[in-house]
Amino acid sequence: MRLLIANEVDPMLSWVDFRSYSQRLLWFAEDGDVLVLPVAPPAAFLRHATSLTGTDPASLTFLVPPPGRYQGKVIDPYSLLDPAFMDRTAKALAAAPGPTTGLLSCWPSPLVPRYAAALGLRHLVPGAAFIDQGGGELANSKAEFRAIAAAAGVPTAPGAVCRSSHEAAQEIPRLLAGTGAVLVKQAHNGAGAGNQLVVRDDDHRTDHVGAKLLHRLGPGPDAIAHYLAEHWAWASRDDRHPVVVEEFQPASRTVYAEYLAEDTGVRPTATGELDYRERRLVRESTPARGLPADVRQRLLAGAARLAEAYRSLGYRGHLSADAVVDATGRLVFTELNARVTGSLHLYGPIAGRVVDTTSHPGLSVTQHRTPAHWPALDLDDFLAAATAADCAYRPETRRGVLVSLPSVPGVRGGFDFCVVHRDRAEEDDVLRRLDGALCPS
Amino acid sequence: MRLLIANEVDPMLSWVDFRSYSQRLLWFAEDGDVLVLPVAPPAAFLRHATSLTGTDPASLTFLVPPPGRYQGKVIDPYSLLDPAFMDRTAKALAAAPGPTTGLLSCWPSPLVPRYAAALGLRHLVPGAAFIDQGGGELANSKAEFRAIAAAAGVPTAPGAVCRSSHEAAQEIPRLLAGTGAVLVKQAHNGAGAGNQLVVRDDDHRTDHVGAKLLHRLGPGPDAIAHYLAEHWAWASRDDRHPVVVEEFQPASRTVYAEYLAEDTGVRPTATGELDYRERRLVRESTPARGLPADVRQRLLAGAARLAEAYRSLGYRGHLSADAVVDATGRLVFTELNARVTGSLHLYGPIAGRVVDTTSHPGLSVTQHRTPAHWPALDLDDFLAAATAADCAYRPETRRGVLVSLPSVPGVRGGFDFCVVHRDRAEEDDVLRRLDGALCPS
Repeated sequence: MRLLIANEVDPMLSWVDFRSYSQRLLWFAEDGDVLVLPVAPPAAFLRHATSLTGTDPASLTFLVPPPGRYQGKVIDPYSLLDPAFMDRTAKALAAAPGPTTGLLSCWPSPLVPRYAAALGLRHLVPGAAFIDQGGGELANSKAEFRAIAAAAGVPTAPGAVCRSSHEAAQEIPRLLAGTGAVLVKQAHNGAGAGNQLVVRDDDHRTDHVGAKLLHRLGPGPDAIAHYLAEHWAWASRDDRHPVVVEEFQPASRTVYAEYLAEDTGVRPTATGELDYRERRLVRESTPARGLPADVRQRLLAGAARLAEAYRSLGYRGHLSADAVVDATGRLVFTELNARVTGSLHLYGPIAGRVVDTTSHPGLSVTQHRTPAHWPALDLDDFLAAATAADCAYRPETRRGVLVSLPSVPGVRGGFDFCVVHRDRAEEDDVLRRLDGALCPS
Repeated sequence: MRLLIANEVDPMLSWVDFRSYSQRLLWFAEDGDVLVLPVAPPAAFLRHATSLTGTDPASLTFLVPPPGRYQGKVIDPYSLLDPAFMDRTAKALAAAPGPTTGLLSCWPSPLVPRYAAALGLRHLVPGAAFIDQGGGELANSKAEFRAIAAAAGVPTAPGAVCRSSHEAAQEIPRLLAGTGAVLVKQAHNGAGAGNQLVVRDDDHRTDHVGAKLLHRLGPGPDAIAHYLAEHWAWASRDDRHPVVVEEFQPASRTVYAEYLAEDTGVRPTATGELDYRERRLVRESTPARGLPADVRQRLLAGAARLAEAYRSLGYRGHLSADAVVDATGRLVFTELNARVTGSLHLYGPIAGRVVDTTSHPGLSVTQHRTPAHWPALDLDDFLAAATAADCAYRPETRRGVLVSLPSVPGVRGGFDFCVVHRDRAEEDDVLRRLDGALCPS
């Protein structure tokens, strides 16, 4: 029996409403586990996910800490130390079957080892000493990443780490000379929400990168100064963090290789690909398909070096090295996430446990967000439509559609679903069927 | 022939008037070297230092970059890239005898590899790739130190790294319970100027630690909140950096062990001791004397582990691990400085080259600041007084007084001098003679 904690990036660094995203924790649940979530799971999603993983939902205990400073939209890490909540946790663990043999937290917060220590479980926190002293922030900073990657001899895009807008003003012109576009990255943020794409002109496509904002520089000599006057405070979060400026790599695919860092070494766990449209993540697929053999080799070798560098620094647990690769096969790493990413539930429990891609390596798991043109619909309606369109996930064929992240009452937007498929044509066919079932013309 | 650069901590992180301190660069000069300084060396100090090191002062070239954003009180690292200054550097290197075979900079600034690259000398910058991407800030942060030390299994005082005053408010009461006093440390600052000592009551001595400010908490339950409301902005530099809070270790000696990190490994270079009076550094001595054998062994072993951790992170060059040891022999590490510290000129050129302590291991080099009760005096007056008191440094005896850091016109305060001595009694005798010569009663 294990204690699973859906804490996300320490909200002191960055936060959004994580109530829906946090529910991916359910994919990891096994019989008897105690789950800490910012909000209790929607009943339909609990039923759906556990029916696929084979976990008995009645055996699970769900704990929601006090809302804390963030209105319960994300776990306030200090809420874990609330005495009444600690007491509830201790009672839940005592009531669960067997001893507590594992602990999974989604972000290496210093509060996790302290919460665990109060429960007598600090020995179950990987890299506890490191994250107790702020190692999680260090290991997840896009700024520190550039120094660590450089020292490890891993290729990155030309770029610099800036501590002030003065430095950025020196570096951006130099970097613009490369491809005519520069990514300005916050040190802490996720899924492209912390990136701005600054372009000199409109010579090339810029629609496929994870950047929240596109800024087209004006023609004058003060264009960069104007940009920084307007955006430096955002990029640095009012000077709280350094800012990365990096030559933009046009016409590139975004891929990742995940590793697990343990006391004994590092080992690869998965690869995948992220597709962006108009600077939003719209599709994520695991494993990464169709990479030339040498590109794949460089992706894995570079990620292994990075994983070993972070392991040597003190981090233990899951980590993901992100990279972009262009049409010529040039591959550069862009960041490292030392946490439970948005991919682990896809390649771990869904691909690994539900689909069993180890035995069926030809299958891919691809996650999509419900498109804006679909009607608002709840999970059961969606699954009914998928069944009607003959594309719901079926254990016998190991293919079809399942819901990977639910919508949560009070949270705007849709939900995420996965297509398990053999090839891109099959995936496209499933998407067409769903579209036809949900938007009959 | 080498290029020596007296840049100090990147002033974007922290700065004071370094014009006097930077002159320690002269101790490192060898025939033909080109030295970059914020201000030209005072003639008397140049004559004094080179007469002791045996360097020909006429063979040296001094370059002062444009004053930049800090009025020339410290080298503005961007001034190194000034085209006219770069041109002057290139010409000086071309005019100096032989090729440029070495480069020493005092702080691992990202601007150093860029300056060196423009001169075709990037290969001479140790760890260039790492520091080019901000590794110097990472390797010199007192906050990141705690995570790296924890992961390396090196003992530190109980403490935490705080990203907001909320976290500090949670941690300080817990830490005060230990010794009744807590050190609040800025992530980037030096020689105790970045520390505040927060004490609960007056139960114990607090006069010997390197803390700029002593804050005695009031009696009420809001005392810590009041302290943080007043001082958090200072401690975090307006939230730019995390803040370390650490249990104060009373009645302790402050010692260090320095290492050199190279591609091939790390090796010990020196030990020393720092004496504080009323929270100011007043005396620094190398090597550290009178440590029990097991304490000395733990100092060196812990420092070696830290040096290896920073080497593995990517840092190359000199580094100093600072520790405090109490009367029971308990030793904890307090910070690591990955730069040319204020000790390297003492144990390097002065002890190593001038005194040759390798052949004369019984000798110590101890640096003092001119005390406030001495009259204002220039270097030649001071040396004349030392000669009159029969305690000027003499190469034949390898003992006596020399000036290690000069006063610089326009900079307030005195200068630093060294006593080379056999034991503490001899040092005290020299200090009495100097006092008698300079303050005849």
